[in-house]
Amino acid sequence: MKEYSVVGKSLPRIDGVAKATGEAKYTADLELPGMLHGKILRSPYPHAKILNIDTSKAQRLRGVRAVITGKDTAGKTIGWIPELPQTMDELGLAMDKVRYTGDAMAAVAAIDEEEALEALNLIRVDYEELPAVFDPVEAMRPDAPKIHDVEHNICHKILLNFGDTEKGFKESDHVREDRFITQKRYHCAMEPRASIASIDSSGKLTIWATLQSTYFFRRDLAKLLDLPERMVRVIRPYIGGGFGGKHEVLPLDFCAALLSKKSGKPVKILHTREEDLIASRQKHPSIVEVKTGVKKDGIFVASEVKAVFDTGAYAAFAPIVVYMGGGYLSLVYRMPNIRYEGYCVYTNKSIASAHRGFGNQQTRFAVESQIDMIAEDLGLDPVEIRLKNVTQPGDITPCKYKITTNGLAECIQKAAEKSGWKEKRGKMQGNQGIGIACTGYVVSARALVPHDSSAAFVKLDENGTVTLIAGAVDIGQGSDTTLSQIVAEELGIALEDVRMMAPDTEMSPIDLGSYASRVTFISGNAAREAAKDAKQQLFEAVAGKLEANIEDLEARDRRIYVKGSPEKGISFIDAVLTSQFSGKPILGRGYYDPPTEMPNPITGDGNVSATYSFGATVAEVKVDKETGKVRILKMTAAQDVGFAINPQACEGQIEGSIADSLGQTLYEEVIEEEGNVLNPTLLDYRIPRASEMPEVECILVETLDPEGPFGAKGMSEATAVPPVPAIANAIYDAVGVRIKELPITPQKILKALEEKGGGKR
Amino acid sequence: MKEYSVVGKSLPRIDGVAKATGEAKYTADLELPGMLHGKILRSPYPHAKILNIDTSKAQRLRGVRAVITGKDTAGKTIGWIPELPQTMDELGLAMDKVRYTGDAMAAVAAIDEEEALEALNLIRVDYEELPAVFDPVEAMRPDAPKIHDVEHNICHKILLNFGDTEKGFKESDHVREDRFITQKRYHCAMEPRASIASIDSSGKLTIWATLQSTYFFRRDLAKLLDLPERMVRVIRPYIGGGFGGKHEVLPLDFCAALLSKKSGKPVKILHTREEDLIASRQKHPSIVEVKTGVKKDGIFVASEVKAVFDTGAYAAFAPIVVYMGGGYLSLVYRMPNIRYEGYCVYTNKSIASAHRGFGNQQTRFAVESQIDMIAEDLGLDPVEIRLKNVTQPGDITPCKYKITTNGLAECIQKAAEKSGWKEKRGKMQGNQGIGIACTGYVVSARALVPHDSSAAFVKLDENGTVTLIAGAVDIGQGSDTTLSQIVAEELGIALEDVRMMAPDTEMSPIDLGSYASRVTFISGNAAREAAKDAKQQLFEAVAGKLEANIEDLEARDRRIYVKGSPEKGISFIDAVLTSQFSGKPILGRGYYDPPTEMPNPITGDGNVSATYSFGATVAEVKVDKETGKVRILKMTAAQDVGFAINPQACEGQIEGSIADSLGQTLYEEVIEEEGNVLNPTLLDYRIPRASEMPEVECILVETLDPEGPFGAKGMSEATAVPPVPAIANAIYDAVGVRIKELPITPQKILKALEEKGGGKR
Repeated sequence: MKEYSVVGKSLPRIDGVAKATGEAKYTADLELPGMLHGKILRSPYPHAKILNIDTSKAQRLRGVRAVITGKDTAGKTIGWIPELPQTMDELGLAMDKVRYTGDAMAAVAAIDEEEALEALNLIRVDYEELPAVFDPVEAMRPDAPKIHDVEHNICHKILLNFGDTEKGFKESDHVREDRFITQKRYHCAMEPRASIASIDSSGKLTIWATLQSTYFFRRDLAKLLDLPERMVRVIRPYIGGGFGGKHEVLPLDFCAALLSKKSGKPVKILHTREEDLIASRQKHPSIVEVKTGVKKDGIFVASEVKAVFDTGAYAAFAPIVVYMGGGYLSLVYRMPNIRYEGYCVYTNKSIASAHRGFGNQQTRFAVESQIDMIAEDLGLDPVEIRLKNVTQPGDITPCKYKITTNGLAECIQKAAEKSGWKEKRGKMQGNQGIGIACTGYVVSARALVPHDSSAAFVKLDENGTVTLIAGAVDIGQGSDTTLSQIVAEELGIALEDVRMMAPDTEMSPIDLGSYASRVTFISGNAAREAAKDAKQQLFEAVAGKLEANIEDLEARDRRIYVKGSPEKGISFIDAVLTSQFSGKPILGRGYYDPPTEMPNPITGDGNVSATYSFGATVAEVKVDKETGKVRILKMTAAQDVGFAINPQACEGQIEGSIADSLGQTLYEEVIEEEGNVLNPTLLDYRIPRASEMPEVECILVETLDPEGPFGAKGMSEATAVPPVPAIANAIYDAVGVRIKELPITPQKILKALEEKGGGKR
Repeated sequence: MKEYSVVGKSLPRIDGVAKATGEAKYTADLELPGMLHGKILRSPYPHAKILNIDTSKAQRLRGVRAVITGKDTAGKTIGWIPELPQTMDELGLAMDKVRYTGDAMAAVAAIDEEEALEALNLIRVDYEELPAVFDPVEAMRPDAPKIHDVEHNICHKILLNFGDTEKGFKESDHVREDRFITQKRYHCAMEPRASIASIDSSGKLTIWATLQSTYFFRRDLAKLLDLPERMVRVIRPYIGGGFGGKHEVLPLDFCAALLSKKSGKPVKILHTREEDLIASRQKHPSIVEVKTGVKKDGIFVASEVKAVFDTGAYAAFAPIVVYMGGGYLSLVYRMPNIRYEGYCVYTNKSIASAHRGFGNQQTRFAVESQIDMIAEDLGLDPVEIRLKNVTQPGDITPCKYKITTNGLAECIQKAAEKSGWKEKRGKMQGNQGIGIACTGYVVSARALVPHDSSAAFVKLDENGTVTLIAGAVDIGQGSDTTLSQIVAEELGIALEDVRMMAPDTEMSPIDLGSYASRVTFISGNAAREAAKDAKQQLFEAVAGKLEANIEDLEARDRRIYVKGSPEKGISFIDAVLTSQFSGKPILGRGYYDPPTEMPNPITGDGNVSATYSFGATVAEVKVDKETGKVRILKMTAAQDVGFAINPQACEGQIEGSIADSLGQTLYEEVIEEEGNVLNPTLLDYRIPRASEMPEVECILVETLDPEGPFGAKGMSEATAVPPVPAIANAIYDAVGVRIKELPITPQKILKALEEKGGGKR
């Protein structure tokens, strides 16, 4: 492998100190001159007609500067799939009726938060309560209360059908059916949603907000406000975590903008933690039924998966989440016959949408749990059955995903080896067990708009600083560092020489944002192209001076020199000056749109990603049979990262995913009763604690993807998927109970142990 | 002339509404989280040794977060001409001694301004008073107190000597000598100086400040702070006027940065109006002696000018001001033999530096006044004698200024014609009079650094917005509008489609800033080049689609089409998208460095500007002989603008210059006694009032400069020069008294009238 100076190194994050010391300022920290504070009035009912809203008293309150209701809005809806009109179902502020407890109906801006809260209390709303439905299966019944104007409250149905599953089951030696349930979860980013909007007298909006994509944020906010996009400028402050929960414009963004317009002042709206938990976005709870047919040697033949995703009051990203929950099913293991039926169903509950794993965590928990059950049925080792079925480089899945590099088999082998699988599986004492599960994931997804592009500009300053101007949004994953490393490597300078500008739609070029593990791959390619372009310009400027051909030049150690003759060169700064004073200030341009396709709207197939990321995770657990408590002893995660631009950052992503998965597997659940969230605080909503983090061993498998920057792939989101079933499988290995419903609480384990009548060993 | 869509039009300023409504935020308006407020301790003595500074009590004050003195500084000096070490004379904070009443010695940062002021009172300084000198002529005497380590307190001497003046005087038919005096003035920008500095834990400084050049501000602040330039990021907020007074880093900027470093918090320092008047920068008072020899027909033969500029305690820009005061002398009228001796002299007074007119207002007041006296001596009409001597296109001046386009003769003729000169001169009744004066000025000046460049980037967004990323600093002259018009014209879009980013050294490319009337010409050329480059990229993207050659395409009305066939085209947005999705997001690059030369350090000659701007102003006045009060009846100003990108903006500049000149001629003066400013408030420092503004008739003469963008020249600063002598000449025409000392106060007129023994008519 070529020797690199900056990429492939575990360099500290460029924003590390600022974030650790509190120097980094988030939206909530920002103040604008004359700024007002906004608050949102939310529905106390899960389902009700709004008969009348009287804001007159609130408007007369001394410190109040603006009050808005649905009447003040343009009546535009938000939604992700204009091709599916039923999904364009969410207004900026509810007008005719409210559909969940927390639905936004009105908002006020006042001189401070206290005054704004007082004003909310003075708004009188007359409701007519409507019958509500909270269970997705009940919601699909013909007599269920109708939440939107769709049949059976089914927002959208996805059908993927490849091969012939009926025939496949007939040809199978063994068929089993299982049903799995996953819970509703809250993203719980450290930073709750926040927004500061300022509309000037020309009607132009500037907004600082918690977001994962300035591109979609601008597009959707402009639509909701009925403004041309050019009248909306979106700036990214520091973002304190996203996990899919900051991808969408929410009422707070919309209300901040509208209140600013009405008051003529900047308006800040902050979600309280409670509001954020109830009224931002959540992860879809799901019911997943899996029927799988295999040959007796363990080779998979056919699979049918039926999944019901409960999206709550509005569609949000649900249709795409439901699609992805099925599309990835045949990415990990070869499955010639596969049928997926996915539903997203409305209920009168808070809204589910994108969340790390994007439908995949739900279905893969089911599938990977069932694989272990099948292996046991057939007397096969879980590692063995997986290795028999894994996809290989060059495979094209039934969904027409074209697999190029694929380190899955190596990941399974290395994770098994490093964890001591052979010595441990089925042999651990003291209620300890070991389990494995795998993952396959997109690296970007051409699914939201017909392109999947990112661009970047690289400006060279005469003081030797290089500015990367790009729209890629670092929401905490460290991509600003990774992209800066790519630019530094390409230009032969140090990481500290690169400054990454905060994305600002007025300045930065197109970038769809942070989702689907796309930033390193897509924005990274764009940044590299821009740096290459700048380097080319540098070389052109100095080739004459160095009496060399451009193709013989090399940039390294802050110098430009003739390859092989480092002494014959000039400094990077001198090269920049040479170009600048010959009339060419250096600015590189880069762009990348991967060679992928939109899924076919009818059949659902299409190569949505230019490469795919694979991995395997081994969990070791100890179960306390008295209390039902599970302790994770160690996690071993092997992930095909293509090439690790920053190994420590990759490891950080894996560790983060494991922390996230602990919550998903063992602790977290948004508990709702009659549409009311019963645990909307961090005292009651239980996320994993630092003391519960196990030892994590990360194995970075490098397959050097030919399409990726320096061979890198996106890998983050993939790593959030396998720990969940791996832990469930390890629990089974430890105490012989199979829990099919998340989270795996002590109660469920105790109940299962009781039903089983004693432990396995 | 080609028909343009956007340039050549009096379009409203893009920042007009924001500035008029208060929406525009200036440095003083900005707030950063956790921000402290700083105040500066200033010397109460004009000249004293600092024996000791005890800050211990101030440091113990509850709300104080940092205190700095000269000891905390890196001891670096600021100055503009490293080649002249004696001019590198100003520390960020005085250490050994103070040199004027107002010299900065220490600074504090506290939780609010009150606490900071209280802390200042607690700092105890032990001084040893030194003898001081306040008059520049006295200061040049051998026994004068020494302010800096230079002989005779002469900071710098300029000698320009071309031809043979002695021979010239001998060949002259008439020689006269006169002595003129100009006063000290304050720029009086509506916005006083302000600075907000924030140094992060990596040591990187971000600063928002009142400035005219992000380039020089970064360079000089980095030097003072002993930081590499890459550790300084300079951002331009809205700027409320500059007039030369915001070109330099001042102690408030330096102290804000140092206090931020020491406290770990952002620090804001605002000048009070009094502080701003005393302790920022002022215009040089001067003594100008002119000896001129002419033939009896009025043709100029020889001229000797000796000028003493009083720079106060530090050099600042003085050496260059003194040079420019001489260099331009032979630009307006042909003068084969010319000798200029210019001195900048230290005194123990507040600091003079760059001010609109830059030395030229002083010397031209003298020269243009004397021309009228010579004309009278010879019985010539002031217009006639001027027309006989004006420079012409193609002339090369003794200083080697290469004149290309030159509309001076036309300006004189038009101003005379429009003002009714022939009917009025010498013929007005009722103590009314009419006077004329001319101007010649650089359009940018290669003088501060060896280049004179500006660059620009033009980014095309898929929503049709075009972002101009440039370092050009709009300090109120309207250049953001002008540059945006240039970009819009070139790309065939509307002005409202263009957004100009506020300069930010981290993002914007090189631009030396706003001075020497350079922005329209230099930055305008760069912006046009960038737009052309972007247009070329657009054309390349769509030529195939339009089945046309690139050279046959035209951009107009937000469309790209084949010349002559507007129906065969595509929209601007579609063209942008076509390029973007073919892998080329559009970003144009432009750069301009004029074909000029640095002045020869020995002889002072060299073509410092690529073109020159010329003009003539006619003043009509009425003098009240009882009170001595002068009322300006009308000003007629004709200016060679090359091409008026925005005619209204040009007229605005002329009107602004006339307002400024009224102050210079009639009202303003910083009155000092023993180094104390006696009128440091706007109640006592008398600027012209709106009611005193006369009718102004502007005549824009368009010479279509081949080097300028669309033929435009810079023109602003030039127009500030001739109104002063024109008014003095008109007063003479009105009442027959020649006032050679500015400002021309009623007292001076009454005294002159008394000495003369009655009025002229």
